[in-house]
Amino acid sequence: MKTYVEPPRSQWAALCQRPADLNDVQDQIVDQILAEVKQEGDKALIKYSLQLDNCHLDNFKVGQEAMDEAESALGPALKNAIHVARKNIELFHKSQVQTIRIIETMPGVHCWQKSTPIERVGIYIPGGTAPLFSTVLMLAIPAKIAGCREIILCSPPDKEKNIHPAILYAAMLCGVTQIFRLGGAQAIAALAYGTRQIPAVTKIFGPGNRFVTQAKMKVQQQGIAIDLPAGPSEVMICADDQADPTFVAIDLLSQAEHGSDSQVVLVSNSEVMISKVDKEVNYLVEDLPRKKHAEGALSNSFAILLNDQQDQIDFINAYAPEHLILNHRDADFLAEQVINAGSVFIGPYTPESVGDYASGTNHTLPTSAYAKAYSGVNLDAFTKKITFQKLSKAGLQAIGPHVEIMAEAEALKAHQLAVSIRLAKLKTE
Amino acid sequence: MKTYVEPPRSQWAALCQRPADLNDVQDQIVDQILAEVKQEGDKALIKYSLQLDNCHLDNFKVGQEAMDEAESALGPALKNAIHVARKNIELFHKSQVQTIRIIETMPGVHCWQKSTPIERVGIYIPGGTAPLFSTVLMLAIPAKIAGCREIILCSPPDKEKNIHPAILYAAMLCGVTQIFRLGGAQAIAALAYGTRQIPAVTKIFGPGNRFVTQAKMKVQQQGIAIDLPAGPSEVMICADDQADPTFVAIDLLSQAEHGSDSQVVLVSNSEVMISKVDKEVNYLVEDLPRKKHAEGALSNSFAILLNDQQDQIDFINAYAPEHLILNHRDADFLAEQVINAGSVFIGPYTPESVGDYASGTNHTLPTSAYAKAYSGVNLDAFTKKITFQKLSKAGLQAIGPHVEIMAEAEALKAHQLAVSIRLAKLKTE
Repeated sequence: MKTYVEPPRSQWAALCQRPADLNDVQDQIVDQILAEVKQEGDKALIKYSLQLDNCHLDNFKVGQEAMDEAESALGPALKNAIHVARKNIELFHKSQVQTIRIIETMPGVHCWQKSTPIERVGIYIPGGTAPLFSTVLMLAIPAKIAGCREIILCSPPDKEKNIHPAILYAAMLCGVTQIFRLGGAQAIAALAYGTRQIPAVTKIFGPGNRFVTQAKMKVQQQGIAIDLPAGPSEVMICADDQADPTFVAIDLLSQAEHGSDSQVVLVSNSEVMISKVDKEVNYLVEDLPRKKHAEGALSNSFAILLNDQQDQIDFINAYAPEHLILNHRDADFLAEQVINAGSVFIGPYTPESVGDYASGTNHTLPTSAYAKAYSGVNLDAFTKKITFQKLSKAGLQAIGPHVEIMAEAEALKAHQLAVSIRLAKLKTE
Repeated sequence: MKTYVEPPRSQWAALCQRPADLNDVQDQIVDQILAEVKQEGDKALIKYSLQLDNCHLDNFKVGQEAMDEAESALGPALKNAIHVARKNIELFHKSQVQTIRIIETMPGVHCWQKSTPIERVGIYIPGGTAPLFSTVLMLAIPAKIAGCREIILCSPPDKEKNIHPAILYAAMLCGVTQIFRLGGAQAIAALAYGTRQIPAVTKIFGPGNRFVTQAKMKVQQQGIAIDLPAGPSEVMICADDQADPTFVAIDLLSQAEHGSDSQVVLVSNSEVMISKVDKEVNYLVEDLPRKKHAEGALSNSFAILLNDQQDQIDFINAYAPEHLILNHRDADFLAEQVINAGSVFIGPYTPESVGDYASGTNHTLPTSAYAKAYSGVNLDAFTKKITFQKLSKAGLQAIGPHVEIMAEAEALKAHQLAVSIRLAKLKTE
């Protein structure tokens, strides 16, 4: 890995840049797909499934039979693991339920906030080399806790027109309402606009390739909410000289194996540690089935030597990593200083993979420094908050005169009169 | 107002459509402004301020002198009203601060969520006919409570190159860091990209005309967070035969006076009430200084007669109004049934204007049915949530085997090894 030794702060911004992605060609293809699905509905879905996924389907919905088969296709150990993960994710996301607090801001003026579920949500689960059933858990469980009435899942089928049984099993377990064998930008279009077969949703969640991501960004412009602007996955590890270099190396690789567009960054105050980790990475990568992906990612990656702890903290917050592992004697202290990150893994026995699957936290997180402004997916992501207020007569009498003055100063006469007319009536009572 | 009597549900979707807005001409102008400000910085700001706001300025920053003048320009009653509003808004938004709850999802596996402030936020306050100092309160107060380090405000100056003293006073009071005399899409561009004079921010808040709104949507695509996709303001009132028709009429008008693109909707089970309100509206509108705006809005507006209470509730949730006034004998019950709305005003003595200014709730709310997926601005809008997890050795030993199985099933070997290598080391201890 390329190593930067005490780079001056003027170079930090460049180091915090992520490898660029989206391009124009993609842009036009996605526009075309969105327009066609909007216009032609299922006909366009059939066409693009054949053209892009090499899959001829007339009916996208997964039936009960396939669901039953999925259940029996999975081994008991995997099923049990999924159940354990589900229980933890449920526990953590249920703890995010907020009770209503009524605040009396002035005598007779009561205000409160209430979370209500987004009624129909869409979940996109990518196909490809790995069946991401864990993402089903991460999205469907909080949707169900939030009280979303319908959870629609789209995932591209394989050559035999099947969705991986682990995805189907996780979906069943978590209360997904309907599942469709449909992938790519066309799936996002279907969820956004609705077709005869696929119902339109209000918010779309889930990861995907660049076409999927770009389609999500585009439908967002048209009023469909999305979970997060997404980029390639990434990890930053802050390790001191006490860390086990093998732990650090395998954690870097467990991010790097996601794809060659991933980025992994090591922050350390120890030159020796950086060199040991580098050696371990080079050794361990050799035996990985996804070696090519990992090597691609490593070529985008770097280590940075910063001796001063405040510099380390500031660099972490400037980079705003999706995942941050603190394998450091001061891990707890460092964790408290983190302002910008998606999810933080504290101490030597907290690898990123526990959060990816089963600790209970969500693994749908802001990449590309979006952690500076966005939360990862949590219970809030499946709800919105409505404010309520209720004034008694005395409440209006207390606050009304101030509202009249402010409305007048903003030259909004009817705003003022809405209060004055009521106060006048109260005087006659 | 046009009245629909018991329209069949098949017509509801059409009734819930808002008048369309954005157009192509605008689109090109905004693209041009964004590109130029990104490239040329302050030079482009100077050019567009002159060209679009007819204001020649080299230095956009408001200095201390103007701030001091603002303070003495305001009368004591208005200052006092602003203080009362500030206190209530502060109280309500402070009540939204969340304490950290550490959840032990399995023995030795601790997870928690923590809100951290967005470091630098931008606030846009429109100029034009009314000085919207109330919006300064609504955005700067929660930003300050959240702990945002910098709050940058842009607002277009008048012909004398001044920002209204009420805006400056409110900004000072709420801890705005810097104020710039700059409006339109060029202000959004400056906040998004930064120039020599104006610092780039991570998230942009605030209302504006169509150019401002479109500029916000466009910079969002480029990675800058925004508060909400915005459309024209709107109110829905649900009133039964016990409501005072004058109250209902002036509440409709207090929304209608915002602008001719506003929409106001009356839902009622009483034909008599609808006709009385219509008469009152026509009477009261005559004396409004913003009569023309109000009449424009009324021409986009309608009443709907629905006898069945469940139909009323379903129509409210289908329309998802920004503001919802329940002037109804069953107001409390109806409020509990609301799933989709920005802010709800319960009972005869809770006009929308109290929420617009001073009850304590936020007035930056989702329009155009965005309430189906989006919250209004609240404390959360100025923060993001980071998740943390910390596993003890025993915690990893408990959860590890499940993570290994799931990682294997997703064909992510390094994810699996990150656990296996640690568990192996623990066995040797």
